[in-house]
Amino acid sequence: MTLPRTPALATDCVVFDPLGRVLLIRRGHEPCAGKHALPGGFVKIGETVASACRREVKEETGIEVAEISLVGVYSDIDRDPRGHIVSVAFMTELTNETSPRVGSDARSAEWVDMGDIDLAFDHALIFAHAKAKLRIKDAR
Amino acid sequence: MTLPRTPALATDCVVFDPLGRVLLIRRGHEPCAGKHALPGGFVKIGETVASACRREVKEETGIEVAEISLVGVYSDIDRDPRGHIVSVAFMTELTNETSPRVGSDARSAEWVDMGDIDLAFDHALIFAHAKAKLRIKDAR
Repeated sequence: MTLPRTPALATDCVVFDPLGRVLLIRRGHEPCAGKHALPGGFVKIGETVASACRREVKEETGIEVAEISLVGVYSDIDRDPRGHIVSVAFMTELTNETSPRVGSDARSAEWVDMGDIDLAFDHALIFAHAKAKLRIKDAR
Repeated sequence: MTLPRTPALATDCVVFDPLGRVLLIRRGHEPCAGKHALPGGFVKIGETVASACRREVKEETGIEVAEISLVGVYSDIDRDPRGHIVSVAFMTELTNETSPRVGSDARSAEWVDMGDIDLAFDHALIFAHAKAKLRIKDAR
């Protein structure tokens, strides 16, 4: 059976470090070339969304993430100029300081203070939702 | 730009009624023809996953759902024999009793007591996760 065409599936990750910073890349390609973004990318056929998320973080920043938790699913039609791309967003909190190294598709990979960041696509929304979940966890 | 091929994207919905029952269909087609399943189906390009979820519930059971909340994202490679299909699962609790009517792709649509149900695909897992979230909400 041929499966119907559906929106493309991607994943993004909000990685927090113990100093309250977030892991961002600067995009190497259009759209939004040069802009800060969450690490992420397309899910491959044959991998789970969580595996794709870990793979993309590793490829783009060199950082290995283990436990990740779901932030939300972002599917607005116009969230990406390339077409209808649905992103499953995850988050994780690292317990140790780790230095990123720039990898595939990215111009840079760095820890950024959360105060004043300008993000590509709808990544500001994803980041805000992840930060809210962080606060709930911290309040326990 | 051509988007890469990614897993097919679907959605399923766990609809609870005020009597503690769950809305199930009996599948009209293979795979799992004749088996109970959650209402759901493929996401179309140009609709959000939440819109697709509401549309599928309406098409398959005649029931209109408004507010839906995310249960999880199910992406195991072998969860569907037709290929790699990722499901974004939602849940909702109806406040009024409503009678379903059988719609597209389904052999029947009915309210089923939660005690002893046998579900197609990984829908038992989705259902268990939704039920757990229901308990958390009820405990507030």
